[in-house]
Amino acid sequence: MSEGETPGDVGTVSLVGSGPGDPDLMTVKAARLIESADVVLHDKLPGPEILGEIPEAKREDVGKRAGGEWTPQEYTNRRLVELAREGKSVVRLKGGDPFVFGRGGEEAEHLAEAGIPFEVVPGVTSAIAGPAVAGIPVTHRDHASSVSFVTGHEDPTKAESAVDWEALAATGGTIVVLMGVGKLPAYAAELRDAGLDGDTPVALVERATWPDMRVATGTLDTIVDARDEAGIEPPAITVIGDVAGTRARVIEFLRNDGERGEGA
Amino acid sequence: MSEGETPGDVGTVSLVGSGPGDPDLMTVKAARLIESADVVLHDKLPGPEILGEIPEAKREDVGKRAGGEWTPQEYTNRRLVELAREGKSVVRLKGGDPFVFGRGGEEAEHLAEAGIPFEVVPGVTSAIAGPAVAGIPVTHRDHASSVSFVTGHEDPTKAESAVDWEALAATGGTIVVLMGVGKLPAYAAELRDAGLDGDTPVALVERATWPDMRVATGTLDTIVDARDEAGIEPPAITVIGDVAGTRARVIEFLRNDGERGEGA
Repeated sequence: MSEGETPGDVGTVSLVGSGPGDPDLMTVKAARLIESADVVLHDKLPGPEILGEIPEAKREDVGKRAGGEWTPQEYTNRRLVELAREGKSVVRLKGGDPFVFGRGGEEAEHLAEAGIPFEVVPGVTSAIAGPAVAGIPVTHRDHASSVSFVTGHEDPTKAESAVDWEALAATGGTIVVLMGVGKLPAYAAELRDAGLDGDTPVALVERATWPDMRVATGTLDTIVDARDEAGIEPPAITVIGDVAGTRARVIEFLRNDGERGEGA
Repeated sequence: MSEGETPGDVGTVSLVGSGPGDPDLMTVKAARLIESADVVLHDKLPGPEILGEIPEAKREDVGKRAGGEWTPQEYTNRRLVELAREGKSVVRLKGGDPFVFGRGGEEAEHLAEAGIPFEVVPGVTSAIAGPAVAGIPVTHRDHASSVSFVTGHEDPTKAESAVDWEALAATGGTIVVLMGVGKLPAYAAELRDAGLDGDTPVALVERATWPDMRVATGTLDTIVDARDEAGIEPPAITVIGDVAGTRARVIEFLRNDGERGEGA
């Protein structure tokens, strides 16, 4: 805290979703807060286009540290409090929405415990936008009365998967897996074992809405081969369910800026 | 089609999500498309602030017709094709995201069948933003490994509910019900019957992010009384799960523009 400041001069932290990556899919408020912030704490998930527009001088990468290790969540929590106590206006920028597998909830609790005022600025989640720009509605009156989001990239400190694939299969709704490339063979098998038909349509959307977005499609039985053939890599989302079949019916007339990729 | 136009002059339809209602939570692209569109087809769900900013001359309300009847989906589908064939640049504006219980999938299929080019502009869904602005993260490393969205307002032509509440309860994740005020007593009972604890935290968020937003909280056992006491009315979302308890831990330090309501 600099001379002349009082403890009352604490700054505000904004937990901000950047959306799936296309700067046009940021909210009006996110764009404004990034512009006015003193510091933007981020990882790689907002994507190169959005990060590229933020001046280096106010960016602080808390995604990876020197040596390639992940920054512990505790460091990020502490840093947010520290900057706010210096009176800074802080944006904690997260890919997609801050409260969808973004650990925004933990940061909110930490800030509240430390007595730091904060706000939440929801963003467009790639769990919905990824399928959408690939021509897939996550719900559909004829095909899916519910949609469930899970993460394929669970906390490595957890002994076993907390995701109940059998219950998810039983909902009969669409299943969207975030960060779901690596463990695809495992959960595709679990879903088949749980009774989902091997013919259930599946789509993988890599870097949704980024200029180099790519899509691979198949069924629960064939999607692992389709992934390998297309060389799909993280970050990507997996959408499982009859809705994934919509893509084939609409893709000929789907225009997303013309430019944005429809590879694979 | 006016004189001198050729069949090649067909317009484009943009299926656009308006977000939960706060104009600041529209995407940059949605705001720009509304500005440049010839016609904006909408219902009431984008909310008064967003609709109020669109000039009357280019608004067409397809939510209700004279006499208070709902416009049939077939009319909206036909109207979108008709306007595009007149060469118009058409925005079909939907509250939240167009593909989350918005019938955007059906419209996309209809447009593709008619040979009309279209694009999808995802929006911030109230299913995530509603809880968020009330201090509730829909996922949380300690409390919820998945989140499922269902609608409480199902197609009245369906004989019975397509929603499998038992399977949803079995996922162990957060459940968010859109348009879930009226049928709250029914599904609260179904979830208890399916084994969810009566002490499970529940929150209702009415008109999320609108200036007159209101929140009511309780448990699966008490939420119907809390709803009645607070007089919560549609449109509102219901969030069910341990994450709903986060609100109490953070609300003192949560600032959403200061102004935006924290009633009830």
